[in-house]
Amino acid sequence: MADTDMIPDDDAQRAFDAFTQAGQAIDRAVWLARMPRADGIARLVALPMPARAEVFAYMPLDAQADFTRLLPEGDLATLVNGLDADDRADLYNHLPPEEGTRLLRGLTPEDRADVHRLAAFGEATAGAIMTSDFATLDPAMTAAQAIDALRRAAPDSETIYRSYVTDAGGHLIGAVRLHHLILAPDDATVGALMDKAPVSVTLDTGREEVARVIARYDVLAVPVVDAENRLSGIVTHDDAADALQAETTEDFQKISTVMPFSQSLRDAGFRVLYSRRIVWLALLVFGNLFSGAGIAFFEDTILAHVALVFFLPLLIDSSGNAGSQAATLMVRALATGDVEMSDWGRLILREVGVAAALGLTMAAVVLPLGAWRGGPDVAMAVGLTMVVVVMIGSLVGMSLPFLLSRLRLDPATASGPLVTTISDAVGVLVYFSIATAVLAI
Amino acid sequence: MADTDMIPDDDAQRAFDAFTQAGQAIDRAVWLARMPRADGIARLVALPMPARAEVFAYMPLDAQADFTRLLPEGDLATLVNGLDADDRADLYNHLPPEEGTRLLRGLTPEDRADVHRLAAFGEATAGAIMTSDFATLDPAMTAAQAIDALRRAAPDSETIYRSYVTDAGGHLIGAVRLHHLILAPDDATVGALMDKAPVSVTLDTGREEVARVIARYDVLAVPVVDAENRLSGIVTHDDAADALQAETTEDFQKISTVMPFSQSLRDAGFRVLYSRRIVWLALLVFGNLFSGAGIAFFEDTILAHVALVFFLPLLIDSSGNAGSQAATLMVRALATGDVEMSDWGRLILREVGVAAALGLTMAAVVLPLGAWRGGPDVAMAVGLTMVVVVMIGSLVGMSLPFLLSRLRLDPATASGPLVTTISDAVGVLVYFSIATAVLAI
Repeated sequence: MADTDMIPDDDAQRAFDAFTQAGQAIDRAVWLARMPRADGIARLVALPMPARAEVFAYMPLDAQADFTRLLPEGDLATLVNGLDADDRADLYNHLPPEEGTRLLRGLTPEDRADVHRLAAFGEATAGAIMTSDFATLDPAMTAAQAIDALRRAAPDSETIYRSYVTDAGGHLIGAVRLHHLILAPDDATVGALMDKAPVSVTLDTGREEVARVIARYDVLAVPVVDAENRLSGIVTHDDAADALQAETTEDFQKISTVMPFSQSLRDAGFRVLYSRRIVWLALLVFGNLFSGAGIAFFEDTILAHVALVFFLPLLIDSSGNAGSQAATLMVRALATGDVEMSDWGRLILREVGVAAALGLTMAAVVLPLGAWRGGPDVAMAVGLTMVVVVMIGSLVGMSLPFLLSRLRLDPATASGPLVTTISDAVGVLVYFSIATAVLAI
Repeated sequence: MADTDMIPDDDAQRAFDAFTQAGQAIDRAVWLARMPRADGIARLVALPMPARAEVFAYMPLDAQADFTRLLPEGDLATLVNGLDADDRADLYNHLPPEEGTRLLRGLTPEDRADVHRLAAFGEATAGAIMTSDFATLDPAMTAAQAIDALRRAAPDSETIYRSYVTDAGGHLIGAVRLHHLILAPDDATVGALMDKAPVSVTLDTGREEVARVIARYDVLAVPVVDAENRLSGIVTHDDAADALQAETTEDFQKISTVMPFSQSLRDAGFRVLYSRRIVWLALLVFGNLFSGAGIAFFEDTILAHVALVFFLPLLIDSSGNAGSQAATLMVRALATGDVEMSDWGRLILREVGVAAALGLTMAAVVLPLGAWRGGPDVAMAVGLTMVVVVMIGSLVGMSLPFLLSRLRLDPATASGPLVTTISDAVGVLVYFSIATAVLAI
């Protein structure tokens, strides 16, 4: 938020000028956003339109908000008119109300209504990431008329390659590719050339699912329809890719018990990091009390065979590690659509086999250690425990994401450490129960 | 690999016929790959070209290999000639040598050489995921000539929208968008219309980085050049998205100590799952021996104050959880390019502050528990240990990915459980050392 009148040095000036002539919008945007605000703004308004709007759209939302605040009304109106509808709505959602109102002042009433419409959709849905910048065609148009219409609409590159065909009521009835229009005879109609069963998503489809549809069908954009199949907008492949990237980062955060935050980790402040990490850390402490209670219950066993404690971290960690493996594989497979809820039964049967094999191998590893530290009885208790806890950990790990999903929670929620905590408590109980039985204490 | 002559029932037949007329290639491909092989092949060859090749290209590689084996030589030649160069190379790499040779028999010598060239690049590099199906333009061409050239080359949709301009030596000198050619006056030259500083990657650029470049610059494809800046191929956005998806799945696997496998989790067999999971599970057992050794060293302390064991799982888990949070955030930020190696110093300073605050909060949570179970001395030992181990766990967690990266290993490698194992061993030593001192045993 620095706002000084410092004059940047000549090197930076020359480098920026070079960028301005031949650079990529995203590179210029990063540069402008990192400069003192006054310099950034001076440089931005020095750019010709439409490059100015393109560069602005690539800046992080925090920087866009600062620029919006500091730009004179006239410059702001020019800039906002050059933005894509979805970028306008994103910025509008990021501003406090009075600044949002100022942002929209320079727009036509229709464009203003459009921003309000786009800004109202639930976060992380197709409605929230779609744009209304796209051209629609009429099925009765000829290929030549359609190309003319697209030329007049002059949409930017990301929306011209695939156009959507609607009937008089605005219902989506087809999609047609630019190169099919170009390669077709001039008098062929759009209705004859179009794909009559275009893939579409609805306004409330999750952004992750939108990205999955785009990837599956290798399309540049996917149309978004309302409940009556009326075309409401399109999501382009680049916006879907950004959304998928954000969604995956959220999965990584959740799986390690960090509550999701969308800010860059590089720029995140103390408060964000502390508040997103402490909640689950503190909650899991209470989970660990079950392990502690289990240990307290078996204090006599421990006092009689203190050598048993030697194997405690090893056994409960092995269970937790096997469980994390199973949970993480499942979380990812559910996120990519590789596995569905209905696969659970078949997968749990396979997991029983795999987990038994893992447990037996691990038992073989610890048996000699058990014999060395505590004799054959301890070895037997440790080996037997290993088989049981690795199996329990694995089965809990692979079931938990399904259970969370069934409870309408994100399967990634805390699954790693939650599995570890459950495995620990179960591991303590199993270990000391088996030991008490085997050692006949 | 089922290969029966079973006749599919009528419903399936009708559904497939409906698909065949208006369906999406990927949906048909999934359908064909799940049928008995003989039926799948019969249906595939009943499709007209080029749809036949498009559907085949979407099938999983295992199914493609089966089809290749079972198709008569003539049908195979037609099919392979219709495939994109990168899909040919992927299939070739998936086949045993003699079947690979049969696959290429129907190709021209140039196409055959091209497959060998593409198939030779290191896995997970731009060279391995690029295609050689693209048109190049000459800077002296007019816009009208360029459009004609593209029309003649008739490349498929994914490559026509952005064409690359090369000089006589094949060096990449520019890129031009189809809609700029269409909107330009007929006599404007490609040289005047082209972007003179197109973004490119080299043959050995990692696939993750390629996807990052495509996302950053919002391009449909990125050109791949050799060390002399000669254009070797292009990577399209959809192939890059698939590659990024695979890379992210690998990160999820690695972070939970599963050795990477590219197969679908749904279809993975016992052997794959067992072999990819057992290695790190068994290795980590040896890591846990350090915790065990720490406990053995403090057996006298434990015997004197067995109540201390109550807090052991809680303390070492908290340390491990805080460490996993830090490690996972860092692994993801390094993977997306949000954080770079050079940020380490600054980030570790911030982490010291955040971890101290987390540790103090957690200590406040466990102090009353400590007082309740073991009196003020135990409470003090437990609280003090909590602050220390949460800080150590966090700092190890955030440093480990950087260290692995410095050692030229993937930062995701086993970071979660490795952090847990290290935290456990350190936690045991810290806890019992502090307890011994505080309780003056």
